[in-house]
Amino acid sequence: MTVTPHPRPQPLYRDPAAPVDARVADLLARMTLREKVGQLNQRMYGWDAYRRRPDGEFELTRALYDETDRFEGLGALYGLLRADAWSGVDHATGAGAEAGPLLADLVQRHVLERSRLGIPALFVEEVPHGLMALDGTVLPVNLAVGATWDPDLYERAASHAAAELRARGGHLALVSALDIARDPRWGRTEECFGEDPYLAARLTEALVRGMQGELAGVDGEFAPDKAPVVLKHFAGQGATVGGRNSAESELGPRELHEIHLPAARAGVRAGAAAVMAAYNEVDGLPCSANGSLLNGLLRDRWGFRGLVMADGLAVDRLARITGDKVSAGALALDSGIDLSLWDAGFTHLEEAVERGLVKESVVDAAVSRVLALKFRLGLFERPCPATELPSAETGRSLSTALARSAVTLLHNRAGALPVDPARVSRIAVLGPHSATTAHQLGDYTAPQRPGTGTGVLAALRELALPGTEIRHAQGCALTGDDLSGIPEAVAAAAASDLAVLVLGGSSARTPDTEFDANGAARAVVSEMTCGEGVDLADLRLGRAQHALLDAVTATGTPTVVVLIQGRPHAVPEAAGHTAALLTAWYPGPWGGEAIAEILLGHTAPTGRLPVSVPRSAAQLPVYYNHKDTEYGTYVDEDAEPLYSFGHGLTYTSFEYGVPNIRPGGGSCEVEVTNTGGRAGRSVVQLYVRRVRTSVWPRTLELRGFQAVELAPGERRTVVFALGEEQLAQVGGDLATVVLPGSVEIRVAESAREALDSVPAVLDL
Amino acid sequence: MTVTPHPRPQPLYRDPAAPVDARVADLLARMTLREKVGQLNQRMYGWDAYRRRPDGEFELTRALYDETDRFEGLGALYGLLRADAWSGVDHATGAGAEAGPLLADLVQRHVLERSRLGIPALFVEEVPHGLMALDGTVLPVNLAVGATWDPDLYERAASHAAAELRARGGHLALVSALDIARDPRWGRTEECFGEDPYLAARLTEALVRGMQGELAGVDGEFAPDKAPVVLKHFAGQGATVGGRNSAESELGPRELHEIHLPAARAGVRAGAAAVMAAYNEVDGLPCSANGSLLNGLLRDRWGFRGLVMADGLAVDRLARITGDKVSAGALALDSGIDLSLWDAGFTHLEEAVERGLVKESVVDAAVSRVLALKFRLGLFERPCPATELPSAETGRSLSTALARSAVTLLHNRAGALPVDPARVSRIAVLGPHSATTAHQLGDYTAPQRPGTGTGVLAALRELALPGTEIRHAQGCALTGDDLSGIPEAVAAAAASDLAVLVLGGSSARTPDTEFDANGAARAVVSEMTCGEGVDLADLRLGRAQHALLDAVTATGTPTVVVLIQGRPHAVPEAAGHTAALLTAWYPGPWGGEAIAEILLGHTAPTGRLPVSVPRSAAQLPVYYNHKDTEYGTYVDEDAEPLYSFGHGLTYTSFEYGVPNIRPGGGSCEVEVTNTGGRAGRSVVQLYVRRVRTSVWPRTLELRGFQAVELAPGERRTVVFALGEEQLAQVGGDLATVVLPGSVEIRVAESAREALDSVPAVLDL
Repeated sequence: MTVTPHPRPQPLYRDPAAPVDARVADLLARMTLREKVGQLNQRMYGWDAYRRRPDGEFELTRALYDETDRFEGLGALYGLLRADAWSGVDHATGAGAEAGPLLADLVQRHVLERSRLGIPALFVEEVPHGLMALDGTVLPVNLAVGATWDPDLYERAASHAAAELRARGGHLALVSALDIARDPRWGRTEECFGEDPYLAARLTEALVRGMQGELAGVDGEFAPDKAPVVLKHFAGQGATVGGRNSAESELGPRELHEIHLPAARAGVRAGAAAVMAAYNEVDGLPCSANGSLLNGLLRDRWGFRGLVMADGLAVDRLARITGDKVSAGALALDSGIDLSLWDAGFTHLEEAVERGLVKESVVDAAVSRVLALKFRLGLFERPCPATELPSAETGRSLSTALARSAVTLLHNRAGALPVDPARVSRIAVLGPHSATTAHQLGDYTAPQRPGTGTGVLAALRELALPGTEIRHAQGCALTGDDLSGIPEAVAAAAASDLAVLVLGGSSARTPDTEFDANGAARAVVSEMTCGEGVDLADLRLGRAQHALLDAVTATGTPTVVVLIQGRPHAVPEAAGHTAALLTAWYPGPWGGEAIAEILLGHTAPTGRLPVSVPRSAAQLPVYYNHKDTEYGTYVDEDAEPLYSFGHGLTYTSFEYGVPNIRPGGGSCEVEVTNTGGRAGRSVVQLYVRRVRTSVWPRTLELRGFQAVELAPGERRTVVFALGEEQLAQVGGDLATVVLPGSVEIRVAESAREALDSVPAVLDL
Repeated sequence: MTVTPHPRPQPLYRDPAAPVDARVADLLARMTLREKVGQLNQRMYGWDAYRRRPDGEFELTRALYDETDRFEGLGALYGLLRADAWSGVDHATGAGAEAGPLLADLVQRHVLERSRLGIPALFVEEVPHGLMALDGTVLPVNLAVGATWDPDLYERAASHAAAELRARGGHLALVSALDIARDPRWGRTEECFGEDPYLAARLTEALVRGMQGELAGVDGEFAPDKAPVVLKHFAGQGATVGGRNSAESELGPRELHEIHLPAARAGVRAGAAAVMAAYNEVDGLPCSANGSLLNGLLRDRWGFRGLVMADGLAVDRLARITGDKVSAGALALDSGIDLSLWDAGFTHLEEAVERGLVKESVVDAAVSRVLALKFRLGLFERPCPATELPSAETGRSLSTALARSAVTLLHNRAGALPVDPARVSRIAVLGPHSATTAHQLGDYTAPQRPGTGTGVLAALRELALPGTEIRHAQGCALTGDDLSGIPEAVAAAAASDLAVLVLGGSSARTPDTEFDANGAARAVVSEMTCGEGVDLADLRLGRAQHALLDAVTATGTPTVVVLIQGRPHAVPEAAGHTAALLTAWYPGPWGGEAIAEILLGHTAPTGRLPVSVPRSAAQLPVYYNHKDTEYGTYVDEDAEPLYSFGHGLTYTSFEYGVPNIRPGGGSCEVEVTNTGGRAGRSVVQLYVRRVRTSVWPRTLELRGFQAVELAPGERRTVVFALGEEQLAQVGGDLATVVLPGSVEIRVAESAREALDSVPAVLDL
């Protein structure tokens, strides 16, 4: 007898036309507890999943087979494309632009084979400032992005990075965005958009829009060249005591809500697919065990429907208080973590459920969120990369544009800049940052192919007028006391009309760096002074750099100091007396080009400080938006920063009128005039100063900014809305917002100038 | 017709046998609103109430007459006895020991004449470390008291200070006790008992017991030689950002409860009559406008029935958010302030009631608390001073005993101390602190009569063996760059067997100091580096002191450095390599004697650090009881302090056994042995380290200490209770306490040693 098989009906979860919720529910109902737990794990380092054979082909490892066996599939895989000193992946061992999609394809096919229900894996990659993979386009770090005050430009760059990620086979982009830089000692200051919640919120929105694209609702599908983001870190990590990485924060709830949550709120409103819980604790509970933060605030009050990922090994750290990793996993899951990272804790969730430490319904909710993301990515239909790599030229152009917009001119005496070819025909290019691109990239950067990028020296040689004599000496290293190179630098300066001295710090990991299990640097043996795990107590540059600066300025040759750095270092006193001072933050591979263009006047500087620049570590903290107290000064040092938040000079000058509240009070306008001799861009900054209010006000709060480009003599009226977004503050219940009784509206070119400006007063 | 008058019955409030509550209610019912408002005001500076005539007699001023006219009496008068550079009161213009009671008497009689109901005024005086009046006995500052770890001794000294206050005519003692030293940049660090809540709580109890004496219940009457205390400041003032005086605190509620409230809680439990609301805000609201702190926590939850006083001009500061001083006064009163200090705001409370800004019932409640205190002081029966001044000799002896107990030996190489007469017959006594007592007193000190006190030089000359050659050179001033005196100091050191170099800081106000309206120093023109309003960003000693230290140690003569200071300065690197290093904090007038006795071995050092000593300002904060995170170090500096909380050497050595939990778990014991060759005192410190717990634990928490004096070779078993006081922590609701699941018990001589010690584990 022969049996005619009935055509097996396609299960609902396989139907791309079905709603995501329905597909999730259908699939979930078919899964075993073990399969579910598998979806919540992201245990492996991606680079342990493959090996590159001598013939250049990739093969999968025993470790990957064991992992997919254990959970009958794979939930998520971290860092398949990651390449850096920690992972040990380089051009010899990893997957570059061409091989990347093949590698992703190989792993995904294996996962699908092992999964009874055909559930694809989620490939999670670092995209902190461009895709952190071989041949990924490196963008300037977030702190430089903050200095651009240009969300539109950043949105385009973010869009490019997402397209690279997806074309290479990655799905989910890990991006720092939420940390607010309140203590520059912290080595991850470079990953912050700055010290201000409003600026960070606008750039976080741009990031989410750029990477994720327009979505049809909260469950909308991502386009194949768009990537859901994991916003890092939630919450308060920028406020850990002493600027110590992943230490505790002592923040009160109001400070948390006013300063550290607005970027996250904006990102969630913009539709961010996921957030990462931060390492730090907030007033007694680590974020990964903080149910009131993850479930109470983020999900229940904000209505966030996305995924919450733990930071690396953060779940296992909870064993410090629970006693073992099984209960640590249960605590984290119960507190709102959906997906762990490298932890053992989440691998034991079956046992945790069986022991009654956490309910299976909590597992189900977390699995649903993981599956929803996979459906929204279209992974069930297109498990393997399906888009073309965007043009590398476009990437370079966007990276350079960000760098150009970020370079910030802090002072400029007697019009020393731009370089006047009539007076300057001999330039000495000096300093440890002057002739290399290695240290201008920042942390979380993949190895670069030789020849990628442009340093300051190379760019000046290329861009300066023919006939300009350019001398070079490094002078010293970034760190250490070796002064032996200084005489050569002094001689070069003495023989020149202008010295360009490029100083700063570095987050460049090298193979001899020692790492913690989560990739943070532990023992520092290179010139590294910044980056994750590299906190700097005293904010000074290396000693030899100070000596070099002193020696070069002593020649009497006008000196322009350029700082390339991942945090605001305390500017040496001598640098305050030089002809000009600029900071370029970590401007990315082509930063030298951006700097040279600005020095030579091919373009004018447009960057504005996203952080206050301290005088020393002893006066910390120095953010502008502290509470408005009568405090004046320390007996030995001013309490005010050396350069104010928002500050940045151009090659022209602007005059601002007094802001004028328009009838009805819903907006205000201010006239801005270019009073100088060159075209230029002014970043018009709107600050509010609360007068009558139910809680103690901050000195100032940035609540709007607009850039205007004006020709010499041109005048423009800039209009700002004055709505709830500008005027409201967190109410006494921390849940609702309240309007002040009376508020001053101040419009200026920096926080410092806003304090001295004539305000408009708005009574509400 | 003649009328025989009925004998007027004595009103109930005049009946000393009636209960305080009944007397208050009776009197209140008789008062007009204006009279009530008068009771809530403490507007005048006491020194504006009188003038000393050329013949030495005192007369009252127009200002006092106007004030008592305005409110038909006087609620409270601040600082009638205060004498210092700010008040301008000195021995020529103020009231010394003999005249004091007469002056108080004069003012009180005037007030009673003006008061329709015969309500006496409350005289409120500063007693921060002894009575701040001419001829008052100056005690070492609180930070030195903290270093004694000796509540019993402090209780005796506090009792003496209260007796002086009452004998001089003062009633209510303002005493710093509640501020926890979390940032040594703060100039008022000297007013703190240290960084630890447990130590501060025990010393606050001692203070309350010593000053107030035994009371019969919460309404009990004070003995005529006892004084109700105003505990300063409530709450969180030790945690203002940047160590900036009266700036905001960003504290979370758990940090507030665990670190900043225990001393207040202990003081309230001990029966403290009053607290002063702090200047700072806590997470959005200044303490003077913080109803949830003053009414919700202090009164409702803790059951505090006493008085809440505002800090100077703190009420008027609220006009920054309310718009005017009338509403500022209403806000403060409504938030729980009973008695203002110098403000205009509280003078307008009649208007505030009439305008409906605050209810008269709130006024009544505050007035009741003021009146209750006056009844409890017996002022209606004995409005004028009625007790004898305690012996000045007793005062000196207690002050010196505290100083002796506070001197802390931080290191002692090759037995450099005590001075061995066999090796040392020539001593050079050097440094800006060596030959003066002017800078060893601390802030809030009245002018001293010439010849009061003993400096280090004078004491060594008196106490050293006959025949000892003692040379002296100052070397330099405390501040500034003048190096001209250094060669003389170097010559003295070179010609000696031992150099004693006395360095440090100063809180000594001088007549040319400029002051804010609340008495905090504003412009510093003297050698002042500490005290209220004198915050120090970089924690270094003056530059010339560094140069002097380098030059003296370079002579090769063994050098003992003694630091006299109001905060832990960052110890210069060279001081770390000297023969010995001690800190005496501000030891009071006779501090030189205490120091000399210890140097010469007449007594052994017993002080223990009540604060961690930082390496530099760049590594702040450095308190030992931070949360237990994995943080290791800054790339350029250790994150750990140079000297640990609890550390202090003796002239012998001790060995501690492993703590042993006694059966039942209610206590533990540890054996302590004097293993050295001299008798000595060890401060046995009990630390808990939470293992299984619902909130993230601190590294360690001090929860007990006991001093033992042991002869050489002697062994003693020290027993510590392990009850709720030792084991509980603030629960998740911040209202109840919870016990950890498991806790380590560590007993050691410092926090650092506790970390390295073998614990006993207690499972609960």
